[in-house]
Amino acid sequence: MSNRVSIAVDAMSGDLGPRSCVTGALDVVRTDPSVELLLVGRPEEIEPRLVRLDAAVRERVRVVAASQVVEMDESPRDAIRRKKDSSLRRALDLVAAGEAAACVSAGNTGALMASAHFVLGMIPGIERPAILAAIPSGDGQTLMLDLGANTSATPEQLVQFAVMGSVVATDVVGRERPKVGLLNIGSEEIKGHELVKAAHQRLQGTGLNYIGYVEGNDICSGRVDVVVTDGFTGNVALKSMEGIARFMATTMRGEFTSSPLRKLQALLASSALDGIRRRLDPGRYNGASMVGLTGIVIKSHGGADAAAFSQAVRLAAVEARNGVPSQISAELKTKAG
Amino acid sequence: MSNRVSIAVDAMSGDLGPRSCVTGALDVVRTDPSVELLLVGRPEEIEPRLVRLDAAVRERVRVVAASQVVEMDESPRDAIRRKKDSSLRRALDLVAAGEAAACVSAGNTGALMASAHFVLGMIPGIERPAILAAIPSGDGQTLMLDLGANTSATPEQLVQFAVMGSVVATDVVGRERPKVGLLNIGSEEIKGHELVKAAHQRLQGTGLNYIGYVEGNDICSGRVDVVVTDGFTGNVALKSMEGIARFMATTMRGEFTSSPLRKLQALLASSALDGIRRRLDPGRYNGASMVGLTGIVIKSHGGADAAAFSQAVRLAAVEARNGVPSQISAELKTKAG
Repeated sequence: MSNRVSIAVDAMSGDLGPRSCVTGALDVVRTDPSVELLLVGRPEEIEPRLVRLDAAVRERVRVVAASQVVEMDESPRDAIRRKKDSSLRRALDLVAAGEAAACVSAGNTGALMASAHFVLGMIPGIERPAILAAIPSGDGQTLMLDLGANTSATPEQLVQFAVMGSVVATDVVGRERPKVGLLNIGSEEIKGHELVKAAHQRLQGTGLNYIGYVEGNDICSGRVDVVVTDGFTGNVALKSMEGIARFMATTMRGEFTSSPLRKLQALLASSALDGIRRRLDPGRYNGASMVGLTGIVIKSHGGADAAAFSQAVRLAAVEARNGVPSQISAELKTKAG
Repeated sequence: MSNRVSIAVDAMSGDLGPRSCVTGALDVVRTDPSVELLLVGRPEEIEPRLVRLDAAVRERVRVVAASQVVEMDESPRDAIRRKKDSSLRRALDLVAAGEAAACVSAGNTGALMASAHFVLGMIPGIERPAILAAIPSGDGQTLMLDLGANTSATPEQLVQFAVMGSVVATDVVGRERPKVGLLNIGSEEIKGHELVKAAHQRLQGTGLNYIGYVEGNDICSGRVDVVVTDGFTGNVALKSMEGIARFMATTMRGEFTSSPLRKLQALLASSALDGIRRRLDPGRYNGASMVGLTGIVIKSHGGADAAAFSQAVRLAAVEARNGVPSQISAELKTKAG
């Protein structure tokens, strides 16, 4: 099949390991005949989960042995130096070797980012990788980056983030000429600091559909398709949103507990709110993309269950089918001038 | 009365002018016999609103004439240069002259901040004013600063913000040894940028109850009493939270609209959520404090109605009664040493 894509899955990753990673990945291969899986990890923990697969599905699943596991609290440096036969590292190696079109892991974010950077390297013209995810918003979703791959960004890097966000919005979300905004604060007089002002200037000179500054409340207003910011601000914004969403869901539970009817109302309301809150946890919802690398790397939440992990695998398949890294490369040439 | 405090109110400010400012301020003077009001603005627009006051209340209200009004879109520079007889400026002048213990305005934030800085000056040892407000949180409220008075902050300034937040948490919120956290991101390896790391080091050497780094989701978890950050990050975090809260309230309205019972549920749920959302708009909820100045300046939201404006006036009275600026001065000497 011409559109077939191979996804390397770090089967040992996350809090649940093969229990969620293998189960979630198999759900994708079962329902999408264009997907092939490379399940990377300890065969003795993976293979028992494959015995009941239909033969037609089983032939699209290959187990790739890796003897080590990167721990959730392991330093990126140690992971790179001492865990060369880890499931995380081997999954990335498969992407580097061209055997897989994308890699998915629910492992340690720092180790995954550093290993991916080390193994895959950067797309020429992109200086730093960024973490990108979809935030629920007025008309569906808004992509935001960087969510914390870096603690700061130069104006040039913010422009590169804008190009990458624009490519993902086009290829993965299906937006034409996605609207890109640069996160800033609203004080008219002293609008933003020098880095943001410099990035604003540069963005106006690109071929992107750059609409200018946006504020924090625009992240989920639907005003733009892509919100660009540095990793420090992006990470704080995302976690602040997650925090208040959790607070609101909790408060709702407490609001109506005086009678059975009110308890039911509280239950209905808080489950709806929890749904929104969960969507704010990008790793849990559908995976966060580590963009800017020469290969596709999707980070799933460490606590992801099988259903959540399968979303990350599906996202990997969509990015693979669209060849996101080469699209970024092409877009850099035409848009960023 | 020994505890009597005089509050200067910019009666012409905000979208509604005297309609909300005078009405809201009168509500405070009526219910709190220790408060005196100096209503600053055009007497012809203020006095008709005082005719039905009880004599006992009326004697605690004085009208101070000011012929000009600072427009909401006026530049801070123009406000300072060309509006020397504005209600905003005159209200600040009353604080500088010692005739009022605090000033409240729903006017243009930039103009208020710049004028306050110009008229009142800084507390010795504090380099920059900061905007501080209460965010709803797990166990009541968390104070956060800077919410956007500045676009960046040095490590020294972050320490000064921590001292100021700690004083307000003690004197206004009533916390003993308030817990102070420094906003950072969770990437263990590269935890924060250099400025944050330097501030972290310095904060450990103060006498404050500094508990270390916190992340965005701690703003409303109740883990700390005070969250310290630079004005860019603080403003983005606050507006992001406001945005998602609005999104959740809107979504809830749409969740249950299939039957009359569900409509009622939606109404109950969304009004509870709106309550939380409104609390995220600090100017609207109870006013934001501009701390670090030699006098007390409270900013109410531009769109505040009379009830919201009265909250800002009450906050001004509490800060005045506690002498927040002199407490900050004292705390700087003992804690930041």
